[in-house]
Amino acid sequence: MADAAANILRLNDADNVAVAISIIREGTPIPGGAKALRDVPRGHKVALSAIPAGGAVRKYGQVIGYAREDVAPGTWLHDHNVGMGEAALDYAMGEETRPVPEATEKATFRGFRRANGKVGTRNYIGVLTSVNCSTTVAAAIVDEIERSGVLRDYPNIDGIIALKQVQGCVVDNSGTIFTILRRTVWGYASNPNMGGALVVGLGCEGFQIPRLKEAYGITESETFRTMTIQEVGGTRKTVEAGVAAIREMLPVVNAVEREEVPASELILAMQCGGSDGYSGITANPALGVASDLLVAQGATTILSETPEIYGAEHLLTRRAVNRDVGEKLIQRIKWWEDYTARNLMEMNNNPSPGNKLGGLTTILEKSLGAVAKGGSAPLEAVYEYAEPVTAKGFVYMDTPGYDPVSATGQVAGGANVMCFTTGRGSAYGNKPCPSIKIATNTPIFEKMEEDMDLNAGDVLQGTSLEAKGREIFDMILRVASGERTKSEALGYGSNEFAPWHVGAVM
Amino acid sequence: MADAAANILRLNDADNVAVAISIIREGTPIPGGAKALRDVPRGHKVALSAIPAGGAVRKYGQVIGYAREDVAPGTWLHDHNVGMGEAALDYAMGEETRPVPEATEKATFRGFRRANGKVGTRNYIGVLTSVNCSTTVAAAIVDEIERSGVLRDYPNIDGIIALKQVQGCVVDNSGTIFTILRRTVWGYASNPNMGGALVVGLGCEGFQIPRLKEAYGITESETFRTMTIQEVGGTRKTVEAGVAAIREMLPVVNAVEREEVPASELILAMQCGGSDGYSGITANPALGVASDLLVAQGATTILSETPEIYGAEHLLTRRAVNRDVGEKLIQRIKWWEDYTARNLMEMNNNPSPGNKLGGLTTILEKSLGAVAKGGSAPLEAVYEYAEPVTAKGFVYMDTPGYDPVSATGQVAGGANVMCFTTGRGSAYGNKPCPSIKIATNTPIFEKMEEDMDLNAGDVLQGTSLEAKGREIFDMILRVASGERTKSEALGYGSNEFAPWHVGAVM
Ligand SMILES: [Ca+2]
Ligand SMILES: [Ca+2]
Ligand SMILES: [Ca+2]
Ligand SMILES: [Ca+2]
Ligand SMILES: [Ca+2]
Repeated sequence: MADAAANILRLNDADNVAVAISIIREGTPIPGGAKALRDVPRGHKVALSAIPAGGAVRKYGQVIGYAREDVAPGTWLHDHNVGMGEAALDYAMGEETRPVPEATEKATFRGFRRANGKVGTRNYIGVLTSVNCSTTVAAAIVDEIERSGVLRDYPNIDGIIALKQVQGCVVDNSGTIFTILRRTVWGYASNPNMGGALVVGLGCEGFQIPRLKEAYGITESETFRTMTIQEVGGTRKTVEAGVAAIREMLPVVNAVEREEVPASELILAMQCGGSDGYSGITANPALGVASDLLVAQGATTILSETPEIYGAEHLLTRRAVNRDVGEKLIQRIKWWEDYTARNLMEMNNNPSPGNKLGGLTTILEKSLGAVAKGGSAPLEAVYEYAEPVTAKGFVYMDTPGYDPVSATGQVAGGANVMCFTTGRGSAYGNKPCPSIKIATNTPIFEKMEEDMDLNAGDVLQGTSLEAKGREIFDMILRVASGERTKSEALGYGSNEFAPWHVGAVM
Repeated sequence: MADAAANILRLNDADNVAVAISIIREGTPIPGGAKALRDVPRGHKVALSAIPAGGAVRKYGQVIGYAREDVAPGTWLHDHNVGMGEAALDYAMGEETRPVPEATEKATFRGFRRANGKVGTRNYIGVLTSVNCSTTVAAAIVDEIERSGVLRDYPNIDGIIALKQVQGCVVDNSGTIFTILRRTVWGYASNPNMGGALVVGLGCEGFQIPRLKEAYGITESETFRTMTIQEVGGTRKTVEAGVAAIREMLPVVNAVEREEVPASELILAMQCGGSDGYSGITANPALGVASDLLVAQGATTILSETPEIYGAEHLLTRRAVNRDVGEKLIQRIKWWEDYTARNLMEMNNNPSPGNKLGGLTTILEKSLGAVAKGGSAPLEAVYEYAEPVTAKGFVYMDTPGYDPVSATGQVAGGANVMCFTTGRGSAYGNKPCPSIKIATNTPIFEKMEEDMDLNAGDVLQGTSLEAKGREIFDMILRVASGERTKSEALGYGSNEFAPWHVGAVM
């Protein structure tokens, strides 16, 4: 959607502003026929049409603020002539819900259909732990299986992963800490990309494996085993027993084959990390297009990272399918305000002086940079951290903004594929969930090409967001069918399991 | 110190009570000449001499409470006739400070003398990270060095460790989170057991490596290097650059040789985890004897785990060398009360109904079970988490009770050897610090003999605490000189780096 002049980017057909990719000199023609009335700095906004005083300023197809005065086409728009206005902070529950039309052409991918009906895009075996004390044993089991070469005999298995962790044994008066940890561990063990799992504990830890089984009604099976070091009688014997358990599991896990399944079986985790000034105008809105394409297929897409949408939750409540869904989001926001205040920290996502210099005028505009990943589909459901995601369509999961913790919650929720946008060049992968890394700008793509799966930087050179979103959608289907991502080739994914610890470490 | 009857244990010569290892039947002779006036349950206390109403009840040589009534020798003592009394909760700063006489016979070990004068008991190379995003790169660097076999050419190097972590990039309004993380990372990099270190970052994370260097006045050297993935240009190139940096470091790190050094160079971290009813009467007081023997040599010993001494800080303030030291401990206690209240958690170390059934009468007595590890020496200093420990003698470091987090703080503080007591059979090791595991009872020692270095369970069969403490002291010297511990042989220590995260994950 870039202008012929190639330095003016309109992000959505409904927008009455465009973004200067590089400085727009006074007098330069802008889309719609007017000329720039003065220089517009790089990253800043220019009005495409007349906006009356009090009129909505639209970017990403959404209201980011209101004109403080009558504005002519070609006017530079920033905090001198644009403000938030009361209306911008109205939750307006469900008032802007615009259903995404069902796709006429049904897409498919080749996935692993599980006994419970879910579909995996990978077929891993996980060795999980209830506590840090059993992490070295878990790692040793995985090492021994890998070194033995036995996996070569089971070509349908993608690998075996030790999901190491440092938690599992703290005072937990409230029950919150272990509830979240149990949910996360079980979420990974039962992720559709996991063909089998072994959970190893120490024995005397606070996170008791029997309570995990009780909480989720789990019974031991051919593909789910548990053991503790104290019961088995020490490190070496537990490694032996764990290796034996995995060896028994291998033929069962290997028995599944990829088959053609509808794209509606996809559950996409969306992440951005190491963001830059281009994230919000290239990779994130392009991913938003891909999210809408998936929703049109009947699939699920998950937006997260609450601190990064804070203050702009109105963008999501407006899209909520009903009041309950909107209220649930607001409750989580209130929980965060209380949680951070108690920890002597501050929720504050307002544009910083640096953001303002870069052209971000309001908190809505800044947050839209992150929220743009979620496209335009109605918000179907709101989940707490690591809760099983069961709804179809676009959903929200409350997580911190810190990438590994956020992504761990999404994968625990059942995500079977992930897209991760980055401007600075994040290094990230997450087993068992393949992670597609999307660069927001061409220089970082070129500098870190071995780490980046896809370049969205060419949106600045004229590639349309629609075309880029379609490219991401197509890659999601290929990766879901087994194409390896860069981070999988590089071996990422065994050190990034990071369950959210809420509360004091005691 | 067990009685001929072998089921009565007096823990200290100053005690006026003894503990029933198994039930003492009415009429059984007890040390001092009296007979048990009624049955004394297992784990409970019997009076060895007459105690007047209001008189101090002494166990571990320390006041655990006061008699509520006149008590005759042979009386069963519990909450019906023993209470706390006001005096027990008097901080009595420094009033019971009893210096440990300097040892006449000077002990030595064979350690690695560093350029800064400190002495290592091991000679490792550490690959640390500033953030989770660079953890897979750190692990890959270590893997490649290990797989190459190059370490065989450098026999004075104990190994190379990736110290993985999940933190490093969160909102940190207060500065506390990164201050602690920086201190911990630098504490490991500069631990005397570390011959060289490489710190790998991503580049855009909150924990900035340049700020680490600035905070500690660090310059890059032959044995300290840093790099970031974004600067080097991706995962593969950074692994290559990291491997090259380590290869350059190897001959320098290998150049050091063990030499005879005084035992005063030891800094002992003391831990208990997976405790049981025997911890407080076998392994912990035996370790306390070893702590006193080390202090007599001019060495340093570190007690920690604040939630486990909570409510009984009076035991330590009485031993403080001056009021400032005592006050610093009280300040940390107050910080914990505030911290846990803010996190809707509770500090409560009172004897539970189960503890009471087992014979623990007061909070002082319960806490002494843990504090007994610290022997009787004066409290020379109080440190915050991961602060460099510079004092000689017995010191306290404020840490959580959770073992890996607590031990990480002590090793960051400079501990070069560790003793870890366990009744349930903890699996623990910590590179670069060798960890001696001491069983509190013979059954767990026998069941997990491959994990346990030393059995203190025979204290129940008549081995004196002095003899057991001496045995621990001797093993500390051997291990400090290079003897491998069980957990080193089993490969523990690369998954247990767990810096304390104080505050909300955002
Ligand atoms: Ca983000
Ligand atoms: Ca983030
Ligand atoms: Ca993220
Ligand atoms: Ca303890
Ligand atoms: Ca502990």
